[in-house]
Parts: sequence; C-alpha cells; structure tokens
Amino acid sequence: MSLEDKFSKLCVTAQPDALAVKSLVFKPKTPKSATPVPIIVVALQTTSTATAVIGSATSTKEPRLARDELFASHFQCTSGKDFHLGHLSQATSEFKLLIDDGLAKTQDSQVLQLTEDKYIAKSELLHFLEGFSPQVVDFSQEAPKQQDSKKPANKAAVTNQSKSAALEDAKLIGITVDKKMDFSGWYQQVLTKGEMLDYYDVSGCYILRPPSYAIWEVIQKWFDEKIKAIGVENAYFPMFVSSRVLEKEKDHVEGFAPEVAWVTRAGSSELEEPIAIRPTSETVMYPYYAKWIQSYRDLPIKLNQWNSVVRWEFKHPQPFLRTREFLWQEGHTAHLTKEDAEEEVLQILDFYAGVYEELLAVPVIKGRKTEKEKFAGGDFTTTCEGYIPQTGRGIQGATSHHLGQNFSKMFNISVENPLGSEHPKVYAHQNSWGLSTRVIGVMVMIHSDNKGLVLPPRVAQKQCVVLPVGINAKTSDEERAAIHQKAKEIEQQLRSADIRAFGDYNDNYTPGWKFAQYELKGVPLRLEFGPKDMAKEQISVVRRNDNRKYTVKLEELTTRIPEILEEMQRDLYLRAKELFDSHRVIVDEWKDFVPALNRKNLILAPWCGVTECEEDIKDSSAKKDDGEEFEADEKAPSMGAKSLCIPFKQPELKKGQLCVRCQRKALYYTMFGRSY
Amino acid sequence: MSLEDKFSKLCVTAQPDALAVKSLVFKPKTPKSATPVPIIVVALQTTSTATAVIGSATSTKEPRLARDELFASHFQCTSGKDFHLGHLSQATSEFKLLIDDGLAKTQDSQVLQLTEDKYIAKSELLHFLEGFSPQVVDFSQEAPKQQDSKKPANKAAVTNQSKSAALEDAKLIGITVDKKMDFSGWYQQVLTKGEMLDYYDVSGCYILRPPSYAIWEVIQKWFDEKIKAIGVENAYFPMFVSSRVLEKEKDHVEGFAPEVAWVTRAGSSELEEPIAIRPTSETVMYPYYAKWIQSYRDLPIKLNQWNSVVRWEFKHPQPFLRTREFLWQEGHTAHLTKEDAEEEVLQILDFYAGVYEELLAVPVIKGRKTEKEKFAGGDFTTTCEGYIPQTGRGIQGATSHHLGQNFSKMFNISVENPLGSEHPKVYAHQNSWGLSTRVIGVMVMIHSDNKGLVLPPRVAQKQCVVLPVGINAKTSDEERAAIHQKAKEIEQQLRSADIRAFGDYNDNYTPGWKFAQYELKGVPLRLEFGPKDMAKEQISVVRRNDNRKYTVKLEELTTRIPEILEEMQRDLYLRAKELFDSHRVIVDEWKDFVPALNRKNLILAPWCGVTECEEDIKDSSAKKDDGEEFEADEKAPSMGAKSLCIPFKQPELKKGQLCVRCQRKALYYTMFGRSY
Repeated sequence: MSLEDKFSKLCVTAQPDALAVKSLVFKPKTPKSATPVPIIVVALQTTSTATAVIGSATSTKEPRLARDELFASHFQCTSGKDFHLGHLSQATSEFKLLIDDGLAKTQDSQVLQLTEDKYIAKSELLHFLEGFSPQVVDFSQEAPKQQDSKKPANKAAVTNQSKSAALEDAKLIGITVDKKMDFSGWYQQVLTKGEMLDYYDVSGCYILRPPSYAIWEVIQKWFDEKIKAIGVENAYFPMFVSSRVLEKEKDHVEGFAPEVAWVTRAGSSELEEPIAIRPTSETVMYPYYAKWIQSYRDLPIKLNQWNSVVRWEFKHPQPFLRTREFLWQEGHTAHLTKEDAEEEVLQILDFYAGVYEELLAVPVIKGRKTEKEKFAGGDFTTTCEGYIPQTGRGIQGATSHHLGQNFSKMFNISVENPLGSEHPKVYAHQNSWGLSTRVIGVMVMIHSDNKGLVLPPRVAQKQCVVLPVGINAKTSDEERAAIHQKAKEIEQQLRSADIRAFGDYNDNYTPGWKFAQYELKGVPLRLEFGPKDMAKEQISVVRRNDNRKYTVKLEELTTRIPEILEEMQRDLYLRAKELFDSHRVIVDEWKDFVPALNRKNLILAPWCGVTECEEDIKDSSAKKDDGEEFEADEKAPSMGAKSLCIPFKQPELKKGQLCVRCQRKALYYTMFGRSY
Repeated sequence: MSLEDKFSKLCVTAQPDALAVKSLVFKPKTPKSATPVPIIVVALQTTSTATAVIGSATSTKEPRLARDELFASHFQCTSGKDFHLGHLSQATSEFKLLIDDGLAKTQDSQVLQLTEDKYIAKSELLHFLEGFSPQVVDFSQEAPKQQDSKKPANKAAVTNQSKSAALEDAKLIGITVDKKMDFSGWYQQVLTKGEMLDYYDVSGCYILRPPSYAIWEVIQKWFDEKIKAIGVENAYFPMFVSSRVLEKEKDHVEGFAPEVAWVTRAGSSELEEPIAIRPTSETVMYPYYAKWIQSYRDLPIKLNQWNSVVRWEFKHPQPFLRTREFLWQEGHTAHLTKEDAEEEVLQILDFYAGVYEELLAVPVIKGRKTEKEKFAGGDFTTTCEGYIPQTGRGIQGATSHHLGQNFSKMFNISVENPLGSEHPKVYAHQNSWGLSTRVIGVMVMIHSDNKGLVLPPRVAQKQCVVLPVGINAKTSDEERAAIHQKAKEIEQQLRSADIRAFGDYNDNYTPGWKFAQYELKGVPLRLEFGPKDMAKEQISVVRRNDNRKYTVKLEELTTRIPEILEEMQRDLYLRAKELFDSHRVIVDEWKDFVPALNRKNLILAPWCGVTECEEDIKDSSAKKDDGEEFEADEKAPSMGAKSLCIPFKQPELKKGQLCVRCQRKALYYTMFGRSY
C-alpha cells in the first residue's frame, strides 16, 4: 500500500463539527541554480500564517506561496488547487513541514476538514505527519492579532486535558527540531519551550521570563561586586537624548543614526523637536562629566549603569543576540593618566571573561580588535570572543574600549595640570565597556541539546528538582505519603544549605513526563527518591548534561550535592573548551584557510595588520575554495571570515613569516572566522 | 551714608578686561489684587537666563520682564533703562534675588561691568548682594545650550583656584535658601549641591547620581529579598507597546493616553504604526499571562520587574516626585482565589511601609483609598501615606492594588475550574503594585536641613567620614603623619566591619571646609581624629542630624559605631514620627476643618464615604475659612484637601457620629490633606 493510499485510508466521513484546516505550500527565495526546498504549512483555517514566521522558523528567505510548477516538480501533483497532504507521500525531493501550534493543541478526538471531501481525526493526522519530521510553530508569536482567535483552541485542549493527553502532548511540548540539522529553529524552540523567553508583539523585542532574568541577576551580582571593588559606582542617566546632544559627535552618531528610535509625540502633542532613545550613553553622559570634573582631584570618575538601550536594527532579529531593546551594563570612566585607564580596560576584560568562563561555563579568547573592527572613535578595543560549535562561527562576547582622549577633547572633559597652571591643561583618558544579555544566548547555544536547555549550575535559577519515583499501583497510601514526606524534607534540607532546590509532588503526571519537563527546562540535577532510596537512606542524582548518575547518602546530602553541581559546572566548561580548542586551528598558508573554515573552525593565521588585506580575506573566504559560490547561511549571505581578535596569547611567530594572505611580513597571529 | 551711596562707593574705574554683567528684573504672574514680588537676576552677559529656570528657582509662575511701572513702584527708579543694582537698596517692598552660578564662579578679583559707567570687583559685588539673601542658580541646568559658553567661566575659576578661593567658594557651594522660607528652592539646591541628582537637558528628566542611586540599590536589595521569599520572580518585558495592545483596555488607557510618549521613526524610516513607550505594564504583560496560564496549576503567577517607565506629564516636573521617566518596580500577580490575592496585597503594602519606616526613617499611615482615589479598573487600592512638615502636605508613598477579576476578564486570563470542567471556568484574581524612586524625594524633604542632606544611615552610600583634625602650624611633620596613619587604620577597621566608611586626608582644605562639604552631602557620622584623640586612644564622633557628639574608645570602635548609626536611624524616625503625629489631628466638625488644614495638619475626620461629599470637601477647603480665596501654593492653585486614605487603624467612631461635611452618617474616619 503506498503512503498516499495509506493516507486516504485514514480519512473519515464528513462531520458537521469538524475544524477547517488549510495546507499551504511555500517556496523560499533560492538561487536559480539551486533546487528549492518547499515548506508545507498545516494550520487551522483561522490561523494567520505570517510568512515572516515561516521564514524565521525554517531559516529561509522570503517564502512565497508556491506556483503550480513546484507542485508538479516536487509532489507529482498538477496544480496547487488539487494538492492535499496525501501528496506528501509522493514527494520527489526534500521539503520542510510546519504544524500550527493552535492545531497541535486541539483535542486528539477533534475531527479536521482538510479539503472539501477529506476529513480526518486530529490524532491520525499528527501521526501521519510525524513521518515527515514536522516542526510545531506558534504563529501567534509574531502575529499576535491571531492570539484571541487562537485562544479558544488552547482552552479547549486544557479543558479536556487528562493524564494521557498530557503525556501525548509531551511530544509536542518537547523540542521537535534537531540542533545539528536546523540550528536556528532549534535555538528558537529551546528558548521558548524552556520558558527562557517569549516572542513579543513588537518585532525584535522579546520577553525575558524568570529563568533567563534570574541568570542575568546572577551575572549582575557577580559583576557588580567586582566593579565596586575597583571603585566604580552605579548611577542612572535618562533614556532620552536631545537630537542636538546626540549629534554632537559626528563619527559616533554616524554609526548609530540608522538605528535610532525617535519619540516625536507625547499624548496628542507633537514635540517641538524629536527626542532620541539612547542607543548607548556616551553623548548622554559626557557633557555632565565635563561639568562635574573641575579639578584633577575629581578624577578618576567611574560610573556604571544597568539599563536598556534601543537599536532599531532592520536586520533579522535573533533572541538575545540581536534585539531592538536589550539589557546591558555600560561603564564609562575618565582617568587622569593613560596608564590608569589602560589598566582598567584590561581589568574589566578579565571580569567579562570571568562572566563567561566562571559563571556561564563558556570558554573565550581574549584579545584586541583590529583597527577595522575597533570601536570607532576609540584608541583600541579589547574583546573576549566565543565559538558556537554547531555553526562553526565565532561570536563577540563583550568589549572593553580605551577611548583615549578623543571624547574628552570633544566634550572638553579637562582639568588643570596637576603640575601647575603654567602647564597645559589635561584632557581625561577615558574608557567605556559593556556586557549585554547576549551572553545568555551564547550560553544556550553552546550547552543546550535536543532535549532542551542545559544550564550551568552556578547561574541556573533552580539547581535541583526533587521527584518522588517508583510509586505504582502496588504502593500503599502510607508508603506513598512517607516517600513524599521524606522527599519534601530533602528539598527543605537542600534549601537550608542555600541550594536552589524545588520539588514536584504532583500525582497527575508520571515521573517520565516530569523528567522530560525538567530536562526541557535545563534543571542541572534531578534527584529521584523512591522506595529503594528510602530503604537505603540515599537519593539518586542525574546530571542534566550527560545523564550521569550518582547515588548520594542522605547524611552526605548537603556536602555532596554542591560538589556534584560544581563538577557539572566544570565538565560543561571543559567540554565546551575542548570543542573550542579543537576548532581553533593554526593556518599559515592561504590554500588551507577556506577549507579549514568550512570544517567549522576558527583560524589563527599570521597576518600583516593591513586593513585592505583584512577586507581581502573576508571577500576571498566568502567563496568556496574551488571558486564556486560559497553556500552561506541564509541569514549571512556570502559570509566571509572576519578578524575576531588579535589574541593576547600568541602562538610563536616564525622568523620571516609572511601574512597568510598577502606577501607582507606578518606582525602577529590573528583569529579569523565566520561570525555572528 | 545711604545704601545706594554705599554701592556707588564700591564701584571702580573702567577696566578693559571686565566681564559684562546684566541685571534683569522680572515680574511673576500674580493675582491682580496681590502685590507682585519682583525677581532680580544678576548674570553674566553671556548667560541665557531662561524664564523657566527663574520660575522654577523662585517657585513663581511665568516670570516676565518687568515694565517701567514696577521699577517706579518698587525701586523708586523711573524706568528699567535707568535701573542698576544700587537701586536694590531703595526697594520699597520684598523682592527675590538670583545670582548666576557662572558669575559666582568667576575669580574674586575679576572686574565686572554693570552698566556703561559702573564697574565693580566681583568680590565686592557679591558682598553687597549678600545683604539681600541671594540664591545662586545654575542656568545651564535647564538651558544646556548655554553650557559651552558657561564652561570657560568654570574653568577660569578652577584654574585659579587656591586654598583661600576654595574656602571663599564654600559659601556659594553650600545651601543658600532657607528650608522654611522657600521650600522648593531649598529642595532643588539640597539635591543638586548634595550631588544626589543633576538636571538634564531633556525637561522633566534627571540624572540619578551615585549617592541617590545607591539608596535605590539598598531599597532594591531589601524589597527584592522580601518578595522573592513570598514566591515572586523577576522578569523583564519590553519597553515598547503597540498602539493596538495599549488601547485594548479603554478605561485604563484613558488615564494614561495624554502622557504616552510615541516612537514614530527609526533611523530615517517612518514606522508603519507608532509604538508607545510603556507608562505602566498591565497591557504589556497580561496578554502573555493569558497565554502562559493554561491550568489552575499554573497559578499563582507572580512576576515583578525593576524598570523605568515614561509618563510625559506637562505639569511642572519636580525631581523624584514628578519626572517624565522614573525608575520603579512593578509587580503583577494572578491568583486562583480572591483570598490569596487579598492576602498578598496587604503583605506587599507592609513591605512598602517597611521601605519607608525601616530604611528611610519615614513614618507612614497605611490605609485604603476611597473609590474616587483608587486605581481605575481595580477593586481596591491600598496605600501608605507620608507627610511633609514644611508644607503641611500629605504625599502618597506607594500603592498596592487588588484588581479583582476586571483585567483577567478583559484579557481572558482564565483556567478550568479545579472542581471539574462541568463548573464554570475561573478568571484569575489579580494584583498590581509599584514603588518608585519618589521615595528618595520624600526622604530628602523630611530629614534634610539648611546645611544640606541628612541621610538615614541604613541607606546612605557612605556612613562615616574620617577626618584628621587639630593639625596646625605647630604640628610636627611626624605627628601629622602619625595622625594620618592612624586615621587611615581606623577607616580600614570600620570598612572591615562592613561600615561604609571613607576618609579625607587632603591637606589643601581645612577641617571646617570639609565639615561643611560632608554636611552638605549628608554623611551620617563625622569622625574627627586629632592629637588629643591620638593620645587618649579615642575618636570624636558627630551626628549629622543634630550635631550630637560622642567620644568612642578605639577599642570599642566596631561595636560603638554601628550602635551610633542605629541610634541616629531611630532618632530620625522618631523625630519625623513626632512631627507627623502632632500634625495629624482629629476634626469632627467642619468649622475646625480648614483652620486645622491651614495650620499644616493632615486631618482625620468622620466621613460618609460618598464621592460627591469628598469632592465638596476638596472644593470647600480650597478657600479660606473666612470665605476669601485661599492663598494656595503656586504649583497647586486653589489646592483643596483630598482624601489620602481610610486608615486601617481607626479612631473609635462615636455612635451616631455624622460626616464632618454633610449630614449623612459617618462610616469611618478618613485622612484628608493637601497633597503632592
């Protein structure tokens, strides 16, 4: 029996209360030479399937409804009008399949109307579609106009929720996209289903839910203590900037102008002059530095603020990595001497590396940006750079800039020379440095997997979940109660020892369902407590990252659990470091450069330091080494290798070593890579 | 010799390098029946003296350049053209005098040109003007276009700064306005000169400098721990709201619409639809509550965020109390039962009262708002209300609202009935609650004095300053070094004991100058350490609030200083409480109501609970009891008494007691007062 026949067999007779379902076929924008991979969308008739969401879910560009040719070439179907889901079984090449979350959430027994004469039970349809690796997409996320109309469907599902439905649903609740196969689809799911973040109805803005905000709080506390210890104070400057002030520094504003959001109206009144929302606070703060700093005794001034800034980018937004509003800290300091400023720049960079390595278990490489990549207007930029193994791309972690005296001359931040007024006045030496919630995205990309989030214990909002297990039909009520009671005591004991533990004693869900839930949410340790553990006065511990199991004596609970958490933290770091180290290769000759890049490596290459050569490297690596067009990530067309940094820790440069690309003498090894 | 003659004597001969000075006379808007109080502004010719700044500095309305009549009636001078500062000595009635900060900061020896033929040394001019209680105003604060032109004057002062100049300047650095005489001018000075806050070039926005932000951090930490202990989690929702979502709840948006700031442009692109900046986050958050809450097991949901909101008010802004952007926390919770929600509302109100009473040493009265004053759309609002003795006005401290099911019905935040799906679905019972940086303004108004800030020790960024004293010409270098050395050890010892101490060992300033500085900045304890203290192994301690002195044995340092800090904290609270308690009077009869109000009291009166009566009380108390127009605060014209709250702690209501205003039966005592 062919699959198409099999599908027809699943269909039932017409039913009056059936919900109408539409099957749409989209073709993404594809080079003419390439075979398009169509996208099938199966959705409730009432769901608006915005192409932006489809493009985002499938990492494709500008999907449009397919023409008849595609139906013929891909599905052996003469026209779109005749197409139905049975045709999927006849597909002659690869396609992607999206299922509307609203549809997935209807009752299993719901009958659906596919075409005029094809009706099918929802459970049968989903079972059929599962053969094609579908991805469930919540179309309400980016097109919330649909939210209200979708809501009743959700409610119906809830109203009829039973134990088995919940279990059935678990498959859809879990991650349905493979990290290796569709990294960006996976990333979106792992964040939303792990409840780190939700999409918001203003494009490019996201909701930071408690599990991600809690990570930010851990980072804030850690970093705040560090900077206060070196004399930095927190302050808060307004989010608004007058256009006059914003435009004061021409080079600076040029970089930000295309992304500045402007307030032009308040209530029903037009403002006399538009007011900008800060994209960063140099021009907000420095006029006041000039006012406050009247004597060299007022230096250094070291202010930091924890705030949000707005950069209205028109590029494809990505949660945490590229968002129109984001949370960060921005430090702005002014010093009497260059030495003092330079010392601080590196000190801050060490703190940033500490956030990554000590808290997020993410290895980074510290170095200096090239002239091309440095903060415009500053003297030099230091950076810590990370690596995303799945895409083989580098990612800028956080930057600490030495601004020199450029801004202080512009804003007249100057003091009398300490040597006396007969000496020329001294312009302050300035730094600025920032770290944003991007760090959370990097962490998720590196550690999480196909079961969901994997969170490093030091930053996880919840470190352990305590679950009663091994309770079945034969378990007496008394025994059950005793296990619950003891599990709660264990939970309490952990909390008293400052371990962020919680328990789940809900009998409506099976342990298996709970395991999947807390794996999805990335709780570092699962503590299982059943009758056998009770008898042996022990508890079974399972690590989220690798399922490694431990048995811990209850009497050692509060010493062993913190140890296991720290072991897991260390192992996450070591595994990520191994992946980074093994994908950071030294390449001395150009012929090996692009092949190494294509093997998802970052490259350390001897380099001449000439900006034109840097641009040439980028252009030349955007193509395959055989001369054909390089098949770039959809979101980074023709992506070539950028310089990421000139690492502080340098491989030894051979005498007379030439630049990897040109015939000039190499000055140092530079790290290159495709990047975010 | 008449004063006018005396002034002429001060004048010197024309000097080529004199700086031009202008003397301007303004008349504020005044009722026709009243005698205007002119404002004299003495400023550098180059300073732009914006009338908005003049109005703000003098708490007057719309000052305009005076006409000739005023010169004649007030200064015995025929026309404005002939007027010079000598005429001040001939004034026939009260006037206010403002001196440009830029002028005050020029060198003492600078010669100034007053009129075509009148030249005077700056020091002489200021000496002369001091007789008229001048107020120094920084015109660059609200009119920063002038900042650059003013800057050179500042710099000149700095460049020529000497020890004696610094001391001379101290008088101008200190507070020059009396708290009792000009409360709002005093408030502005105490904040800016105490370095809590600076004015910003976008009107209604202010810079929170480290001393005020540090107070906010103490409050954040304290409150954050409290709410987390009752299960609240922090999150972050975007600052932008689409107009569609903002306008979803009509009553709610109606209250905020006139103050909403709209972003209409990004870079050079007009947005397709304008996007609002949140004035509060009900409509931002609740659609997602509806999405996330799918089962009663998802309840309660308790989220809080620390953020800034924007309310573009057109009323006169006031630092901390009424600002266009302000920092706050907003908590939004949804509960399965009304009881659960109501319990939380009161719990949060207790925390708010704790912020005031335990941290800021500010007594408050807890109660419920009347129907007229409650949060529109909510079921009831609870509040804590403070009292500002100088103005006799009440001030709303923070509010905690029980929203009932109004919003949950609007946004469909509902779950299946826990009793089973055959029962009707349950709409969540919601609360929202917020506390803003306004608390800092209230604290400053209550405790600070004519010497500057007075900060409660628990919230002060710096709790103690250690100062070497008693060093004079006779002191040997060795002895001086030993005192400094020991003082630094003391400072270190205090810091090791977690006391926020610092020292000032700068020899360029006298102890007296430093005393004034740290009084201005409100450092709670001054620790003076001199040769006698050294010999006796002790240190002298002076409390900022009342100059009370202690002698502390060095061996008891780390136990006594915390005790003294706590004593000061308690005494600040008790003094404020005494003032509040003695100005909260029970009034049963209407004839006593307005007179009691005019004696700067808040009033507890038996009241009927009828909204129309509440409005009548407000109208009727806006006039004097003798029927004449009540002379209201300039910023609150015809200010009547509003209901502040129905206190939880009630005086006993006599049987048959009638409402203080109407003939209806009184239901409870209600607190009324003029308010901010």
